[in-house]
Amino acid sequence: MPNPPIGFQHGVTLDQAQRIATTALEEGRRLGLAPLTVVVLDAAGQMKALLKEDGCSLLRPAIAHGKAFGAMGLGFGGRELARRSQGMPGFMNAFSDLAGGAAVPVPGGVLVRDGAGAILGAVGVSGDLSDKDELAAVAGIKAAGLTPDTGDDA
Amino acid sequence: MPNPPIGFQHGVTLDQAQRIATTALEEGRRLGLAPLTVVVLDAAGQMKALLKEDGCSLLRPAIAHGKAFGAMGLGFGGRELARRSQGMPGFMNAFSDLAGGAAVPVPGGVLVRDGAGAILGAVGVSGDLSDKDELAAVAGIKAAGLTPDTGDDA
Amino acid sequence: MPNPPIGFQHGVTLDQAQRIATTALEEGRRLGLAPLTVVVLDAAGQMKALLKEDGCSLLRPAIAHGKAFGAMGLGFGGRELARRSQGMPGFMNAFSDLAGGAAVPVPGGVLVRDGAGAILGAVGVSGDLSDKDELAAVAGIKAAGLTPDTGDDA
Amino acid sequence: MPNPPIGFQHGVTLDQAQRIATTALEEGRRLGLAPLTVVVLDAAGQMKALLKEDGCSLLRPAIAHGKAFGAMGLGFGGRELARRSQGMPGFMNAFSDLAGGAAVPVPGGVLVRDGAGAILGAVGVSGDLSDKDELAAVAGIKAAGLTPDTGDDA
Repeated sequence: MPNPPIGFQHGVTLDQAQRIATTALEEGRRLGLAPLTVVVLDAAGQMKALLKEDGCSLLRPAIAHGKAFGAMGLGFGGRELARRSQGMPGFMNAFSDLAGGAAVPVPGGVLVRDGAGAILGAVGVSGDLSDKDELAAVAGIKAAGLTPDTGDDA
Repeated sequence: MPNPPIGFQHGVTLDQAQRIATTALEEGRRLGLAPLTVVVLDAAGQMKALLKEDGCSLLRPAIAHGKAFGAMGLGFGGRELARRSQGMPGFMNAFSDLAGGAAVPVPGGVLVRDGAGAILGAVGVSGDLSDKDELAAVAGIKAAGLTPDTGDDA
Repeated sequence: MPNPPIGFQHGVTLDQAQRIATTALEEGRRLGLAPLTVVVLDAAGQMKALLKEDGCSLLRPAIAHGKAFGAMGLGFGGRELARRSQGMPGFMNAFSDLAGGAAVPVPGGVLVRDGAGAILGAVGVSGDLSDKDELAAVAGIKAAGLTPDTGDDA
Repeated sequence: MPNPPIGFQHGVTLDQAQRIATTALEEGRRLGLAPLTVVVLDAAGQMKALLKEDGCSLLRPAIAHGKAFGAMGLGFGGRELARRSQGMPGFMNAFSDLAGGAAVPVPGGVLVRDGAGAILGAVGVSGDLSDKDELAAVAGIKAAGLTPDTGDDA
């Protein structure tokens, strides 16, 4: 039998992902937000870290995942996905189906870039209003020394 | 063991499909488009060729496939699908579900016809705005000596 | 707009889940295992915490989830699911389909019980051989002061 | 509207993928194999290139994809997946379901590594006997200056 699998390199590291996730939840507490779930996806769109606060409703993990996965799928932060959902509903409905329902086009899905602009993954937060969810995601990404891309021009 | 399967004849040839795909990407570069994915389906709706440029977001292959598959599914180019998505959203939402999410009703899905009008397959391109994606698909099909059907009257 | 959702009580707490997940990974490192993914599900079968070590292959998160979800689905630890997979393959194949593929009947899926035997959630670990994955899950659950149920009599 | 998506970096490049795919088909012709389909996945498990020879049966693209995706999913070449399918059928049936049917555990799914062992993607070939399909995949990977990992010790 061969050695255990090695060599998969998928962007954001576990250390970075844990820092993002724990900081996002701390920011939610600091701002007095409702209980949050935070999902960190790696560059392959697979889950790297997830934390769900006590009191979250049933599908918060799926919604947080969908925000991050939608961003990875199209290559834009959630604010751009929200604009397209308004302007091109036919396409965005099809995109949702194509993703098996796992693409949620609202703020709170944020791409994670390094200093050179390379995409290392994405963060999705759900639990409060989307604009507030996004604040938590952004705080987490910055705490890890990385650059958030919300889908708005900086 | 029986002989290998032979005799499947599914429209567009591999030579044609490769010509379509490589030309579509060249056209994208010439026009300065974002990184593109191009999918060529044969007359049976199966993938004949796919090429994804470096830098594409995660679901570009699925979106490009969906544009081409939607065109094959209904028998119209993507522009007609987009019109129906506007005018008959109930049917088009059901069509998306029926296709398991693999039908994306926007420009950039283009039927491939021979000189007599027979449908040999379809091309889907995704990466930039849909109208620009379509330019790349059309250039590819013409380079192979075949006739693009975008869903608009010529 | 209504107040944020409160009052969902789903067994394992975030503090416990984080303790379980980080200890499971530490145990994996201590034992020299391949890179692991650990998933902690709450009493509602939703994800409470997930951590994926650097180097994991693409579907480790889905496999770890499936081990834990299979245990929650039938109400037995993964060792009992593995026995049933041997003894009643027809039922277990149907169970896998019924769960949409999200039920993996092998060791490494471990129920989390409190002192009175109540099920607070389940842990799934994937990355090395199943028997070794289970060691990491059990170490995590014990570190949180809870009782692992592997599907074997103690 | 923000600029087009940039920064996705997913292992194997398009140049490498095209070299792999075209060489695999040439090797098939040289060996007199049945018509082949070759799929190249990138490090995110998404399709980078696909070519289907004229005469392939309907699901060759899906089978070739499944061989490559199974290898990416578990982190082993197809020969190791085939061994596990023999030795742990319950797990491998569940793995197939978990992958939505897109994991085919036979030779002809080959991991693509760089000189340092990092996994850049995977290749799947289908059309002839699995052992012969694998020869074509290996030839393609080598022609691109990369290292094939079939799941057997070298």
